Amino acid sequence: MRILIAGANGKIGRHLVRLLGESDHVCRAMVRDPSQEWELRRRGADEVVVADLEGDCRAALITCDAVVFTAGSGPHTGPEKTVDVDQNGAINLIDLAREMGVPRFLIVSSMRADDPDSGPEKMRHYFVAKQNADNHLRASGLNYTIVRPGKLTEEAGTGRVRMAERINEFGEIPREDVAAVIRAALDHPGTSKREFDLISGDTPVDEAVAALD
Amino acid sequence: MRILIAGANGKIGRHLVRLLGESDHVCRAMVRDPSQEWELRRRGADEVVVADLEGDCRAALITCDAVVFTAGSGPHTGPEKTVDVDQNGAINLIDLAREMGVPRFLIVSSMRADDPDSGPEKMRHYFVAKQNADNHLRASGLNYTIVRPGKLTEEAGTGRVRMAERINEFGEIPREDVAAVIRAALDHPGTSKREFDLISGDTPVDEAVAALD
Repeated sequence: MRILIAGANGKIGRHLVRLLGESDHVCRAMVRDPSQEWELRRRGADEVVVADLEGDCRAALITCDAVVFTAGSGPHTGPEKTVDVDQNGAINLIDLAREMGVPRFLIVSSMRADDPDSGPEKMRHYFVAKQNADNHLRASGLNYTIVRPGKLTEEAGTGRVRMAERINEFGEIPREDVAAVIRAALDHPGTSKREFDLISGDTPVDEAVAALD
Repeated sequence: MRILIAGANGKIGRHLVRLLGESDHVCRAMVRDPSQEWELRRRGADEVVVADLEGDCRAALITCDAVVFTAGSGPHTGPEKTVDVDQNGAINLIDLAREMGVPRFLIVSSMRADDPDSGPEKMRHYFVAKQNADNHLRASGLNYTIVRPGKLTEEAGTGRVRMAERINEFGEIPREDVAAVIRAALDHPGTSKREFDLISGDTPVDEAVAALD
């Protein structure tokens, strides 16, 4: 499969570029800034395409079999930028994927995105933006997977996770493990039209993902 | 070598993409329009980079060993566009190649560019634009090659040419043969700091180019 990664230069994106670069898939990294091309090729990207998530990125989608949306405005921008990127950027790409006939769409959402009021007040705008993107994806007709990780950490991945449609206790997970789950989900059709919370746990990634088949 | 082709989607450029795609070189095609990516990959481009010749195309030049400039505004635009692309586009790319440490630069110029007054009046602005670009390249310090083909035709290449620093009789040459000469020149260091007129002839391309060594 040719897999477009939106947000390839982000913290999860970089792990995913490496994992897909080592796989038999064609790893197509989408970035906004042309100067990021070589860093991404070094990490394993087979193709690099420069496109603006908030603009016309149809050329980035041509011949792709799947999209992974892992772009985010990051913690250092205001709520407006979160709406622009995490919500409207995702919605734009979902609509274009449908238009271009790309059948599969995986999105990195967030725990609490399915219930924003259950999270802390200062994070609410973030959960709402994620929720709006997830709702749009669910209604798109695409073969979606919505991955809702807990608090993301920079620790090395353990390869072991806990996945369920709803996990009540908020938890953490290394970004490297989130990337590994996405990597596995791409190869498991059972993750299509599914969504799940994701935190660190005891089950090996492949086993946890295969359990959805 | 990683070779950037500016004007990769032009008529000579497409032949050259195919020839370099079949070679051991990395063929890096530069285009303005992202929708041209897949056509160029189909023709053999290893990498496609979207950049505007008249703008900041430094990211396109990173890690390149050579540039081939075969962009042109084409016969259906006015003299201003010829100055913008054939002259100023080339000058811009020559300056950026020097800045980025790309040592080798081949340019597709035109017979009569070394003596614009010797050509027909209605073509004079074109020869002057080419001459200005060639002069800039000659003075750049880069390892330049200036290829000055005669009237370009769409016929199939014959693989046989006539090359000399100055050919007095104006002649024709298929674009496919021009591409073959550029392809050969990239592998012959003897073409560095050289310039020549080029028309159809009796000498096999490789022999004609090797004679410059």
